[in-house]
Amino acid sequence: MNIHQYRLEELAKIVNGELIGQADFQIVGLASLAQAKANQISFVNGDKYLDTAVLSTAGALIINQSLKEHLPAHQNFIIVDNPYLAFAILTHVFEPKFTKQGVEKTAQIDPSAVISESAYIGHYVVIGADCVIGDDTIIQSQAKIDDGVKIGKACFIDSHVTITGMAKIGDRVRIHANTVIGSEGFGFAPYQGKWNRIAQLGSVQIGNDVRIGSNCSIDRGAIDDTILENGVIIDNLVQIAHNVRIGENTAIAAKSGIAGSTTIGKNCILAGACGVVGHLTITDNVTFTGMSMVTKNILEPGTYSSGTGLMENSQWKRAVVRFRQLADVPLTKIMKRLDHIQAQIESIESTLKLRK
Amino acid sequence: MNIHQYRLEELAKIVNGELIGQADFQIVGLASLAQAKANQISFVNGDKYLDTAVLSTAGALIINQSLKEHLPAHQNFIIVDNPYLAFAILTHVFEPKFTKQGVEKTAQIDPSAVISESAYIGHYVVIGADCVIGDDTIIQSQAKIDDGVKIGKACFIDSHVTITGMAKIGDRVRIHANTVIGSEGFGFAPYQGKWNRIAQLGSVQIGNDVRIGSNCSIDRGAIDDTILENGVIIDNLVQIAHNVRIGENTAIAAKSGIAGSTTIGKNCILAGACGVVGHLTITDNVTFTGMSMVTKNILEPGTYSSGTGLMENSQWKRAVVRFRQLADVPLTKIMKRLDHIQAQIESIESTLKLRK
Amino acid sequence: MNIHQYRLEELAKIVNGELIGQADFQIVGLASLAQAKANQISFVNGDKYLDTAVLSTAGALIINQSLKEHLPAHQNFIIVDNPYLAFAILTHVFEPKFTKQGVEKTAQIDPSAVISESAYIGHYVVIGADCVIGDDTIIQSQAKIDDGVKIGKACFIDSHVTITGMAKIGDRVRIHANTVIGSEGFGFAPYQGKWNRIAQLGSVQIGNDVRIGSNCSIDRGAIDDTILENGVIIDNLVQIAHNVRIGENTAIAAKSGIAGSTTIGKNCILAGACGVVGHLTITDNVTFTGMSMVTKNILEPGTYSSGTGLMENSQWKRAVVRFRQLADVPLTKIMKRLDHIQAQIESIESTLKLRK
Repeated sequence: MNIHQYRLEELAKIVNGELIGQADFQIVGLASLAQAKANQISFVNGDKYLDTAVLSTAGALIINQSLKEHLPAHQNFIIVDNPYLAFAILTHVFEPKFTKQGVEKTAQIDPSAVISESAYIGHYVVIGADCVIGDDTIIQSQAKIDDGVKIGKACFIDSHVTITGMAKIGDRVRIHANTVIGSEGFGFAPYQGKWNRIAQLGSVQIGNDVRIGSNCSIDRGAIDDTILENGVIIDNLVQIAHNVRIGENTAIAAKSGIAGSTTIGKNCILAGACGVVGHLTITDNVTFTGMSMVTKNILEPGTYSSGTGLMENSQWKRAVVRFRQLADVPLTKIMKRLDHIQAQIESIESTLKLRK
Repeated sequence: MNIHQYRLEELAKIVNGELIGQADFQIVGLASLAQAKANQISFVNGDKYLDTAVLSTAGALIINQSLKEHLPAHQNFIIVDNPYLAFAILTHVFEPKFTKQGVEKTAQIDPSAVISESAYIGHYVVIGADCVIGDDTIIQSQAKIDDGVKIGKACFIDSHVTITGMAKIGDRVRIHANTVIGSEGFGFAPYQGKWNRIAQLGSVQIGNDVRIGSNCSIDRGAIDDTILENGVIIDNLVQIAHNVRIGENTAIAAKSGIAGSTTIGKNCILAGACGVVGHLTITDNVTFTGMSMVTKNILEPGTYSSGTGLMENSQWKRAVVRFRQLADVPLTKIMKRLDHIQAQIESIESTLKLRK
Repeated sequence: MNIHQYRLEELAKIVNGELIGQADFQIVGLASLAQAKANQISFVNGDKYLDTAVLSTAGALIINQSLKEHLPAHQNFIIVDNPYLAFAILTHVFEPKFTKQGVEKTAQIDPSAVISESAYIGHYVVIGADCVIGDDTIIQSQAKIDDGVKIGKACFIDSHVTITGMAKIGDRVRIHANTVIGSEGFGFAPYQGKWNRIAQLGSVQIGNDVRIGSNCSIDRGAIDDTILENGVIIDNLVQIAHNVRIGENTAIAAKSGIAGSTTIGKNCILAGACGVVGHLTITDNVTFTGMSMVTKNILEPGTYSSGTGLMENSQWKRAVVRFRQLADVPLTKIMKRLDHIQAQIESIESTLKLRK
């Protein structure tokens, strides 16, 4: 791999920043403040990183205007309003580019599939009947694209991904390794003590600019489709059950799960390991903190939480015993009784005073 | 794919239902009430879907007798006692049939393996020594069947499934994509500050009619076997540790995990994301609601739960502070003290009355 | 598979134990006390298994000295201080050995990759440019080793594992089936209502003697690396986010997740399904019990917990209502008010006595 260098002024231009220092300073890469070398650039994401920034040996720093005066020992800066965004933009500059095109000779592609000439299909990929793979899409080795799946342009599908259930995938979608899209939903009709499988006839629709992490499971719908709208981002090990709908630009962190037929609005955030039960409606702009258990519709935007805080184990054990007792302790009545008792005592006391 | 059509009377016969309307009405598929077109059939799963049913453009409806009078604008019905079960049965009618048989030329099969002639083995499947694959079983592309694994009849094993650890699998078992069966259990003997790996010598036994979702991990036993009895159904991303035993017809929803050597009874239901610690016994007919943390034996059938409800974040933060305080607040004593204080006050009051 | 037999004195020597009974007694395998046959050896892991041991038909027992007198009906023993450790050692004696070496002809290996002659590379494995595979390392079928990945000696990489992101892996590392190492971290800069992907330029460093279960996701760092130190053991379905660092010999049970940039110390234990939020520091020798939600730095060694205990569902529902009320019930004030009221009553009572 040959390393590409950039002049500081080139990078400043890319992020629309103001250059301070040596315009032709050569930068070979991005690094964190703590690890950056003299030929690397780093960024200061707010005041709380200032101490680390002072000590950093980075050759250049991306900062906002107000921090510059606190970094007298540094010479090269790119000044921007949003250093984190500028950093995000520069990661793409330094990311190695994937340049392969065409179909590896070991890929098994059904003759009825339509593969763009600018797509790349890796070794041991299997692509079924009637599939469509769009321009500039990369399908890494050993992926499985089952019959009838359509994938748009400029997508990245990593190794060991399984896409089945006639899924339709938009443009610029990234699906990381070992994720399963369009597998059968968990639908069974109980009858006479047995579970009768409901064959899943719906599909999965994934919009544009969707990102799905590794080891996720996104099931096909029972009869209607499971839907991920444009701009949804999903971390690793996430479960999306059949007939779920996720609104635009909603972010779902690792280990979360959404049960069947639930609708999540736009611009929501689910922190790690949240669980949302089935058949709910969650409105737009809702945030669930980590490990939230969501069992009812949420109709007001806001931040919601569940669970107990972490405690030292012996203290926790006592609290759990009391939590159990709460079932039979009328908390709100206690307050009322205390007020009532207080009133009785005051009444007695004034009686006693009168009789003094 | 050619679409098969069915006359309404054919479908009524399949589900043992009473036909009302046009016997020769042509149906091309199943759909939800909201999405159904005029050549599709839908079903009404109880009163709460009646409003949607009234508006549905489905060409025919599966209903129970009592709902018919509320749907005067519809003409074609199949009347049954259990519309959901009838729907489940019809999904199989409309599910595309898999008809391939034989071994793809790219499959790598050890000469000692015994593969039924009616089985299908997909591209890039690897099957090891001494394996057995039964009649009508489908092994999708890129699956790995390791040495000594036996798979029964009419099973469906999807792509990227790994079956190892000498697992024995019954008939009509469905294992969805990217699931791992028979991998090494998490067994280590701590000694002098290090973890000493315990080689796992047990296996996995899976009964008939078992269903396992995608991205699950079902470990082989340490010395005895991990066992899933007949009719067990398991959703996606579920962990079954070594030496667990799951009883007949128990259902386990997504993201649940069962730790080592625990026995779960028959006809249990674990909702999503439950965690059951190791070495426990759970009796038959137990239901755990979502995200339950099970840390003790359950010897009585019933429904069990844990966790706190979801709350608005700022209210939740206050409640969590109080939960912590519960450790040192003797709730049951508070009630007794209140009663005692009340008695004292009444005594004082009667004393005062006497002395009036 | 031919079964190797061992004389009891051979096994006693391997575990440094004292032989009692027939030195040339032939043992064909290890088994649990309940399942052992007359030609198998079992072990008694403490007093609580004594009843089962008495009834066991095992041909020989591994026990500690104190238990021998309670097992008069048994003849053959290996006496050791730590029977569980001796058992762990013997599992390796009875584990079938993997003896294949070389590269299967269907493996696709980039010409620039360096593969040890004593390594084994299975069918349909794909190994990219500049990879290194050390001596005696086993790469099972269909694994994907992406460009620039380095793997040390005597490692075991099971089928469908994806290793990417330029990961560096030490010696004697075991990675079980369908796990993903080095996939892209979940990093996005929010801007104008959209998520802007941060290309992940860091890597993953995995030390020696690390064990990772099946279906895990261990992401590459954003700019610095994600690090697992020597001796870390990880169960199935575990999420390790970008830039996490896990200290030596820490054990992480199934379904746990660690969010980005968190550092976990040495010798910690995370029981099943724990969640640790990002940017935290957890010191050495910390244990989290199952399903703990860790939201703050832990600077003192010890055991920590969260959550509520399991309860019968109707009792739980009442407790959850009260948990919600706790937000507005000043628990610690209740105790103070009770004490205050008690004092007032006593004061009144003494006043009354004086006036008698």
